[in-house]
Amino acid sequence: MRRGLFIGRFQPFHKGHLYVIKLALNEVDEIIVGVGSTQLNYEVDNPFTCSERLQMIREALKEENISPDRYWLIPIPDIYNNYVWVSHVESLCPPFHLVYGGNLHTLKLFEDAGYQVKKVEIYGSGEFSGTEIRKKMLNGEPWEEYVPPAVANFIKKIKGVERLLTIAKSK
Amino acid sequence: MRRGLFIGRFQPFHKGHLYVIKLALNEVDEIIVGVGSTQLNYEVDNPFTCSERLQMIREALKEENISPDRYWLIPIPDIYNNYVWVSHVESLCPPFHLVYGGNLHTLKLFEDAGYQVKKVEIYGSGEFSGTEIRKKMLNGEPWEEYVPPAVANFIKKIKGVERLLTIAKSK
Amino acid sequence: MRRGLFIGRFQPFHKGHLYVIKLALNEVDEIIVGVGSTQLNYEVDNPFTCSERLQMIREALKEENISPDRYWLIPIPDIYNNYVWVSHVESLCPPFHLVYGGNLHTLKLFEDAGYQVKKVEIYGSGEFSGTEIRKKMLNGEPWEEYVPPAVANFIKKIKGVERLLTIAKSK
Amino acid sequence: MRRGLFIGRFQPFHKGHLYVIKLALNEVDEIIVGVGSTQLNYEVDNPFTCSERLQMIREALKEENISPDRYWLIPIPDIYNNYVWVSHVESLCPPFHLVYGGNLHTLKLFEDAGYQVKKVEIYGSGEFSGTEIRKKMLNGEPWEEYVPPAVANFIKKIKGVERLLTIAKSK
Amino acid sequence: MRRGLFIGRFQPFHKGHLYVIKLALNEVDEIIVGVGSTQLNYEVDNPFTCSERLQMIREALKEENISPDRYWLIPIPDIYNNYVWVSHVESLCPPFHLVYGGNLHTLKLFEDAGYQVKKVEIYGSGEFSGTEIRKKMLNGEPWEEYVPPAVANFIKKIKGVERLLTIAKSK
Amino acid sequence: MRRGLFIGRFQPFHKGHLYVIKLALNEVDEIIVGVGSTQLNYEVDNPFTCSERLQMIREALKEENISPDRYWLIPIPDIYNNYVWVSHVESLCPPFHLVYGGNLHTLKLFEDAGYQVKKVEIYGSGEFSGTEIRKKMLNGEPWEEYVPPAVANFIKKIKGVERLLTIAKSK
Repeated sequence: MRRGLFIGRFQPFHKGHLYVIKLALNEVDEIIVGVGSTQLNYEVDNPFTCSERLQMIREALKEENISPDRYWLIPIPDIYNNYVWVSHVESLCPPFHLVYGGNLHTLKLFEDAGYQVKKVEIYGSGEFSGTEIRKKMLNGEPWEEYVPPAVANFIKKIKGVERLLTIAKSK
Repeated sequence: MRRGLFIGRFQPFHKGHLYVIKLALNEVDEIIVGVGSTQLNYEVDNPFTCSERLQMIREALKEENISPDRYWLIPIPDIYNNYVWVSHVESLCPPFHLVYGGNLHTLKLFEDAGYQVKKVEIYGSGEFSGTEIRKKMLNGEPWEEYVPPAVANFIKKIKGVERLLTIAKSK
Repeated sequence: MRRGLFIGRFQPFHKGHLYVIKLALNEVDEIIVGVGSTQLNYEVDNPFTCSERLQMIREALKEENISPDRYWLIPIPDIYNNYVWVSHVESLCPPFHLVYGGNLHTLKLFEDAGYQVKKVEIYGSGEFSGTEIRKKMLNGEPWEEYVPPAVANFIKKIKGVERLLTIAKSK
Repeated sequence: MRRGLFIGRFQPFHKGHLYVIKLALNEVDEIIVGVGSTQLNYEVDNPFTCSERLQMIREALKEENISPDRYWLIPIPDIYNNYVWVSHVESLCPPFHLVYGGNLHTLKLFEDAGYQVKKVEIYGSGEFSGTEIRKKMLNGEPWEEYVPPAVANFIKKIKGVERLLTIAKSK
Repeated sequence: MRRGLFIGRFQPFHKGHLYVIKLALNEVDEIIVGVGSTQLNYEVDNPFTCSERLQMIREALKEENISPDRYWLIPIPDIYNNYVWVSHVESLCPPFHLVYGGNLHTLKLFEDAGYQVKKVEIYGSGEFSGTEIRKKMLNGEPWEEYVPPAVANFIKKIKGVERLLTIAKSK
Repeated sequence: MRRGLFIGRFQPFHKGHLYVIKLALNEVDEIIVGVGSTQLNYEVDNPFTCSERLQMIREALKEENISPDRYWLIPIPDIYNNYVWVSHVESLCPPFHLVYGGNLHTLKLFEDAGYQVKKVEIYGSGEFSGTEIRKKMLNGEPWEEYVPPAVANFIKKIKGVERLLTIAKSK
């Protein structure tokens, strides 16, 4: 049994994230999806609560017919010490053997702790980035195509774009 | 869709816990199993890490053929403010409508926050208690019958009883 | 202008506390009433929230016709480092010149930091103790006479004794 | 009895803040003035300690002959989780029914938690902003007219502008 | 170059601690003396500040003519997660290869993290225990013989026993 | 016996830092070198762990033949309250009488707490700045001459520049 780990903030969960999970599931038996910075929410860079991000991800993976037996969905609060953070992740997640990611910083931390890591070149472009998607939301541009349909629906249901706009209007 | 919430420390996950989950699944569509005090481990009262407790629970529920579509398994770190803790749980878990538990204290917190709560009278006896099971482990008495077989196997695999004995020998 | 400081947990605010405040107001111009351990609540030893304790104290002092110009009511969260705690208190309260208290430990911390301190011998007995009053509440004995009438009314209004009993029934 | 809540950092307390409090006191029986980010001080954006901010506010309200019976002055430390912060405020303050503010972000948090909120259009201009006032202090421009006289005096007494200039000279 | 690690609370530093350090210095090139629970002080079980404990240890090792080139003296604050604590220690201390200790709990944590550990049977008896020495101080019994002379002098200079007695008199 | 205090983040320890320490050792008996922000590491502005910074400093001072009897090397974690931070430093370090520094902000905190402070005009230029040295590392410019040889060797041994470049490539 081999397990992969993939950690993101998922603000929101987008098609780039989904791509990594599907790629990983071709290589490992189970993938741990770690939802990072759980304590951040109602901020321009982190509009969604951990609760909302877990719901988005679960609905998107169900929509893709990915069996819940194949993944673990685990909230990971920040601890503000990068070196120690790897051990903090280990204390929360089942054992893993390979770390997937697009972020060199995160991969470096796991690599220096002795883990095998795999940099995923996101196929598309910078549009598969939470930052870009939030920018589109703020600018009133279409953003729905960059996230799985279940996520687009969820964000509409919770009026997520309105929330982001309200927060952004504040200094 | 109705969701229940059931929070415990699961040190270890035992048959009383399993009973509550099965009872809840007869009444609600999905049950959130909140693993509390995630930061506590390698203590006489909290021997297992969050990682280990998640593994125990997932294996026990698989053994019972409970579909992962029916439950959420969510780590909940302590925050050391009881009143605020309810909101902290809300920020981590999908929305829930009914709170299950055997612990009056926890139920009181949710009740005062406006939630419907349900006290579960554990059918058996005090033996369906983590405290009692850890005591049996420490005294060299049989403890395996009080936990699901998958949990007993898992604890043996990680040499959990040896860990508990070593910790307890320290002052 | 001279200011005194008096810190307590006020679980609940009782006649011994009121006595100290009145005594201090004979000696200093203003008294700072610091409500300590603000984050503790819904516990057997700390049943009331900071919100509730502030209300109790304000109502009790109004009942005594103590002008709000004469006192400051300031919540003081714990910081878990006794030596540093004095500086933490300074950062939250207006400058003070004399520290009142019944607890030698607290007074020692301020004394070693260079403050003048004054040990108040509580006139009555151990009954002017939060611990004793909570014990009476738990045992179903009369407790009302040990707190100012406004506090007794407040605790009844919020069903404080019922809360304490529920919490205490939990292991 | 109706209570309003008004939270700010008050770095420093200025005429815009005073305007909101007076407006609120026309509408509610009591106003809770929550002093936020109590732990921040000696920073370019947060030069004053909580102690100093409490003193400024109390002196400014006394100068206006606002009775201390009409307001509560309550320090509110940050907790770094916006969603949970509302519950944290509730645990510290007496019950409130209406939330006043100029900051859409704060109001959004309370609104989503079910509170009635009231956006106050500050009559003047951006000059009724702590940021602008600190900028004037740093640039050696007159700033006194934007704060109540008692606050200007207090800041001079504690040599607040000198402190701000020293801090700002550091990288 | 081989380094050993020895962590204690050193409340106070006693002859048993000194014995471990001397024993280690026969086996490794350098010993790291980690002063744990740095944030605890002015408590019956933790009367001395980190500052004071560092001074005690440095003076005791100088008295023994142990060269400061042979040891590192490093404060280690608690982090309240045993599993993660090992990584926290690594982030603070230079690399080490062998962990010395008398406490099975601490050794177990390092052993499960892959370190070689060495249980030191303290030659004497339970008297080489901080708990016992603090008890003697509280009971007015002679305690000086159980600590190095430099430590006894230091404790007298700071009036440590008086402090302990004052703290203990408080509830 | 007079002791000086000098606190920095030492990211990395450079010749400007060494200059301050040597200057201080001409004026006081012992210098306390406080390593600040111990919890920060693997960041563009804070690439090195506390462990690594302690090693750098110890090796650089050994290279200069500064006796370990003359200095204390003490990690100081952040506490996020500037006013209270001075007391936090006191709780960790032996008593000191004079505070050295190049940073006006830090000196101001100690000065307002009653300490004598000494601003050190760093002889050279802005190049004796951690920020500048990290910039050179990132730009592939020579940086070795700005740090003591022992530090340059240490950074090469741990592949510190590669780490910095990897971290910086991440968004």
